[in-house]
Amino acid sequence: MTGFYDKLNHAWRSQESLLCVGLDPAMPRMPDSIRNQNDGIFQFSRAIIDATAPFCSAYKPQIAHFAAHGCEDDLARVFAYLRECYPGHITILDAKRGDIGSTAAMYAREAFARYRADAVTVNPYLGGDSIAPFTAYQQNGVVLLCRTSNPGSADLQELEIDGHPLYRHIADLAVRRWNVNDNLALVVGATYPQVVAEIRNRVGDMPLLIPGIGTQQGDLQAVLRYGLTTSRTGLLINASRSICHASQGDDFAEAAATAARKLNDRINALRG
Amino acid sequence: MTGFYDKLNHAWRSQESLLCVGLDPAMPRMPDSIRNQNDGIFQFSRAIIDATAPFCSAYKPQIAHFAAHGCEDDLARVFAYLRECYPGHITILDAKRGDIGSTAAMYAREAFARYRADAVTVNPYLGGDSIAPFTAYQQNGVVLLCRTSNPGSADLQELEIDGHPLYRHIADLAVRRWNVNDNLALVVGATYPQVVAEIRNRVGDMPLLIPGIGTQQGDLQAVLRYGLTTSRTGLLINASRSICHASQGDDFAEAAATAARKLNDRINALRG
Repeated sequence: MTGFYDKLNHAWRSQESLLCVGLDPAMPRMPDSIRNQNDGIFQFSRAIIDATAPFCSAYKPQIAHFAAHGCEDDLARVFAYLRECYPGHITILDAKRGDIGSTAAMYAREAFARYRADAVTVNPYLGGDSIAPFTAYQQNGVVLLCRTSNPGSADLQELEIDGHPLYRHIADLAVRRWNVNDNLALVVGATYPQVVAEIRNRVGDMPLLIPGIGTQQGDLQAVLRYGLTTSRTGLLINASRSICHASQGDDFAEAAATAARKLNDRINALRG
Repeated sequence: MTGFYDKLNHAWRSQESLLCVGLDPAMPRMPDSIRNQNDGIFQFSRAIIDATAPFCSAYKPQIAHFAAHGCEDDLARVFAYLRECYPGHITILDAKRGDIGSTAAMYAREAFARYRADAVTVNPYLGGDSIAPFTAYQQNGVVLLCRTSNPGSADLQELEIDGHPLYRHIADLAVRRWNVNDNLALVVGATYPQVVAEIRNRVGDMPLLIPGIGTQQGDLQAVLRYGLTTSRTGLLINASRSICHASQGDDFAEAAATAARKLNDRINALRG
């Protein structure tokens, strides 16, 4: 078995893509023909996947959009479908879990045993012993929130500690103490490109998951300039709603394909 | 409809109890007779509830222990059972969610529409706009992580900002900016009783959920001395594993009743 970094590097190279498609299926934005089906949320997700697979290297299903409707079975089918049909793509369960050790172990089981995701997003607020049960799955990845893309992220993440913002301490803890199994990555929002530079400077080649390019209108060019590693990879550029819901009509899959292709082309043109 | 604070105050008074029973059903610790049933996790939870209801004012099901086994339906049954049979008890979905606004709205829907919990635990790392979609449910409660009970909590929560630890900033933000709908509470671990004093001093009568009394061996006497409000309430003292798994045999429910009764008696003796 290969580790998360190996699988990620392989996906970046073989797909020639840094694009991660976020699966945030919003019922009200699905066409009636899909929404009215019992497993509509799975049907929708599968159509998005089939349409966008040539243009991305990773998928990030967001669990709340399934859980709000009691559709965990559909989420499990999404992961099973990805494993079977697109085994070279990385799968990231976006769940932002965080709890004391004994409970974190159950969340890790949810992500890695139940859904069999390659990686899961984790919230660092509870500290190292809340992260260890995830990183203990040495073949899987753990994508730790560092600087998120939303406006309110400044409330905590920019608070200054010894003259530096909290998110920078998270990056330092990730590199110096928490990455014992070489399977950590960090979330850094595209809405703050100068932060991408600061974090890249501190974490070496650690992979960064970059949300905020699509609906949240982050600066793609700056993110790539500051975030790429010397191998012109190191980043998973995520777009969710701008791809999944590029159209709310029956042409949603074609529209998703077009949005994914265009964004991927733009990323590849900019990274050279 | 009454708000969360009203319902909580009523539960404290009518039950004469500050005890919250955490439902963290661990499969390996259940007796075979229960574990081997299809809905064993529900059967176990129901037996714990029936045994402990006279000695507590709240229940806090921990979602990871259900989700790890794909048992969301059992969790929904637990909440439905509590609503039907113990409508005066407070129900708290322990999920520690936290995400950008549009996703937080889906998590709020999971907690308040799907499970119909009275309250949910929320992680503050993403800031105010990640909390607002929860507090927008004005009849429900939002229990925000402030200082958690685990050892690793010091990694972030004790970092000093302007000479004061991060957790204190969370408490200040909760009181000054985030409690617009009067439905916030805070998690403060019993493992740090001096922190309970510090937080109580800053948040007035805001309810505090106190984990860490049981297995984690926090100091109950100090917590009550520092944390009670002038009405001798204001605290939900949580115990999970020390009650749920007081015995791993077929007498687990009786053992849970005994553990809950003793802890509740001790709390009531100490609070006078």
